[in-house]
Amino acid sequence: MDEHLSLKLDKVIHQKARLGIMSILSVKEEAEFNYLKTQMKLTDGNLSTHLSHLENSHYIRIKKIFVRKKPKTVCRLTEKGRKAFMEYIKNLEQIIGSVPQV
Amino acid sequence: MDEHLSLKLDKVIHQKARLGIMSILSVKEEAEFNYLKTQMKLTDGNLSTHLSHLENSHYIRIKKIFVRKKPKTVCRLTEKGRKAFMEYIKNLEQIIGSVPQV
Repeated sequence: MDEHLSLKLDKVIHQKARLGIMSILSVKEEAEFNYLKTQMKLTDGNLSTHLSHLENSHYIRIKKIFVRKKPKTVCRLTEKGRKAFMEYIKNLEQIIGSVPQV
Repeated sequence: MDEHLSLKLDKVIHQKARLGIMSILSVKEEAEFNYLKTQMKLTDGNLSTHLSHLENSHYIRIKKIFVRKKPKTVCRLTEKGRKAFMEYIKNLEQIIGSVPQV
């Protein structure tokens, strides 16, 4: 018997905060730490943990830059991250497609 | 600033195994414990935990029945569960809609 489609969902991406971060980064070329923090309503610590998780999977790249002498942390998707995210979305669409619509 | 759509996802449903169980029950009127176990590749213990979680949220109803003197555990969605699942799917569709298509 085939396993259910939901088992194919990438567990790094299938976590509410990380799904949000990946969605944002798929739309914007890059996003700043504080922007992600506000959008995802996360503490510094929690956001850092999720970003590290995504970075360790090579799904995002994190850069420190200086804007008017102030340090900023900027994130963007890697090519691997974009592919993994699109694959994830494709699997979600299949699950949604299997559900009878109301 | 508005919070990200992913924060609206029901955390009881947004867990791979439970998402699978809810999807299956949205399609089939009812499903048996062993069927869910095979489809979701879960141990008895893990499946029981997920089912209890869904039952405690009043999303599914669990019934023990006898078929040819053998006990069977059968699950089905409640009306509340169906509504919550449809709301979850609607939110997912909005997230997918916000993602640029490849």
